[in-house]
Amino acid sequence: MPLDLDLKKLRFGTELLKRGFAKMQKGGVIMDVTTADQALVAEEAGAVAVMALERVPADIRAAGGVARMADPVRVQEIMDAVTVPVMAKCRIGHTVEAQALESMGVDMIDESEVLTPADPWFHVKKKQFQVPFVCGARNLGEAVRRVWEGAAMIRTKGEPGTGNVIEAVRHMRMMTAGIAELKTRTNDALLSISGRFANPYVTLLREIRESHGESPTIAEHDVALGDQTLDDITEGLYQTLLEVKKLQRLPVVNFAAGGIATPPDAALMMQLGCDGVFVGSGVFKSENPEARGRSIVEAVTHFDDPAVVAEVSKGLGGAMKGIEISQLALEERMQERSE
Amino acid sequence: MPLDLDLKKLRFGTELLKRGFAKMQKGGVIMDVTTADQALVAEEAGAVAVMALERVPADIRAAGGVARMADPVRVQEIMDAVTVPVMAKCRIGHTVEAQALESMGVDMIDESEVLTPADPWFHVKKKQFQVPFVCGARNLGEAVRRVWEGAAMIRTKGEPGTGNVIEAVRHMRMMTAGIAELKTRTNDALLSISGRFANPYVTLLREIRESHGESPTIAEHDVALGDQTLDDITEGLYQTLLEVKKLQRLPVVNFAAGGIATPPDAALMMQLGCDGVFVGSGVFKSENPEARGRSIVEAVTHFDDPAVVAEVSKGLGGAMKGIEISQLALEERMQERSE
Repeated sequence: MPLDLDLKKLRFGTELLKRGFAKMQKGGVIMDVTTADQALVAEEAGAVAVMALERVPADIRAAGGVARMADPVRVQEIMDAVTVPVMAKCRIGHTVEAQALESMGVDMIDESEVLTPADPWFHVKKKQFQVPFVCGARNLGEAVRRVWEGAAMIRTKGEPGTGNVIEAVRHMRMMTAGIAELKTRTNDALLSISGRFANPYVTLLREIRESHGESPTIAEHDVALGDQTLDDITEGLYQTLLEVKKLQRLPVVNFAAGGIATPPDAALMMQLGCDGVFVGSGVFKSENPEARGRSIVEAVTHFDDPAVVAEVSKGLGGAMKGIEISQLALEERMQERSE
Repeated sequence: MPLDLDLKKLRFGTELLKRGFAKMQKGGVIMDVTTADQALVAEEAGAVAVMALERVPADIRAAGGVARMADPVRVQEIMDAVTVPVMAKCRIGHTVEAQALESMGVDMIDESEVLTPADPWFHVKKKQFQVPFVCGARNLGEAVRRVWEGAAMIRTKGEPGTGNVIEAVRHMRMMTAGIAELKTRTNDALLSISGRFANPYVTLLREIRESHGESPTIAEHDVALGDQTLDDITEGLYQTLLEVKKLQRLPVVNFAAGGIATPPDAALMMQLGCDGVFVGSGVFKSENPEARGRSIVEAVTHFDDPAVVAEVSKGLGGAMKGIEISQLALEERMQERSE
């Protein structure tokens, strides 16, 4: 059925269409759900999309062990239950989990640090997929690397499953100020920033040379990283940085995620310049998910109207308990899981 | 019975035959089993071979203490129960465990870091055996040393008993990229890499000279390591490296092992270039070993067909819980047990 294939390509195939799909979520709230019932609650509350996963981040954190792609049966049940787009998470670098989710027809894949990473060096090559991807980032370098790899949406990493907004604020401020800084830089300076942004891609090569007993210094021109040279990569990052400097924003939408638990949290992230909000554990680990979900949607829509934010915050019952960041050891911080 | 002896030699005796036996497992899944019942489940699920051991790696890790060769009664029961080849594990450097297993007629011996090492410097001299061996490796240096010692099959070490695929991915990427790097090297450079790859073989000598209060510097030409000089060893490693450079792969099959717990994990390792997959704790520490075993076999066969991988991943029940690598202290990492 070549027609069918072409339609699929039309839907997903190009960078423009992938980014376009992501933009359609703008101004909205995307909620984590683990069952079809929760998905219906989220849809009813006004979520623009739902994220299907096995456990919300707070429960993943509590359970420990290895967190993997959800059972496809569960994802399918959620897809069958709601009419809004359904996203699902794959492990960082787990190309086959991403392929499996794409084959099922999920609308977007989150290559997420909430799950246990599967590759110590590489993220999924997202340009080789027809389905759009969202990835987490703590700063401009991470965002530019993910966009260069093909991400159609960026979200702050924050610190997932903590109900503590401070890390999402940190990452959004790093991003915004990092973008503003580019205004003061010449294009030559951007080229040298691109070179430094490319560093994480050459760590494998460095380790191989060390294992060969050779000096780990990398001569730029003989570096082959699969099908790309380091020069190709630096050039790609440079082109993205030029675009960021000119637009004074990322070329894809940038959502807030990781610790948003209340309507004021969501509105705060919007005032800091986010394009929309992911709520992970914040809705379904609270006392009244229906009311809290609706209120967070309202707060994102009216983020600049304090009276509305105050009104929708009334009588929601307890928010998720949350975790003070300083209580987390470094290896328990999901945001540290990729760069 | 000289005829019987000759037949035995024909079956196992030469490098060609040993490597040929290993190649026959290609594209297949080898499963850890601890009882005849489990072996039958594995055979029924489509395993090309089974690995007989006393406890799966996750239980060895949980039990602590010293892990040794399985009781030969158990190994024999497993051999009597199934028609597929039966492998068994001996401790690193434990020549007599290997001899005992060979005398019983096991089809392949895994000189494995999952058991407690028995020799601080030397691996078993595998060329002196008629039975083929498989050994773990984290990078090209370890693989080339094991092949030079006589291993007929290499597997990634990964991190056994964790259900966490990231270390197997790390080792496979180190191997593949390390082999690709050789293309850019002159034969002179290969000779110097061989010299550095020989380093672990001279650590005993270094420690002896230190215990004599002498400088641990090693003069290349007067080093005698049993029946080999350091020059002999370096030359042997160099010849293997030349072959690797020319073939652009190891001269023996290379399987994935150490942390594979789901069908997508197994397919990911195949996409990274493995020749087949060992599943240790992943099958029998999961909720539904029969279904999971079958699904992993399907995923290895159809590793390039995401729709099949997604389909066979449905409704398998819980995977093994697993361990986040950062939660393991360095001395708890089995992959560090040899080099």
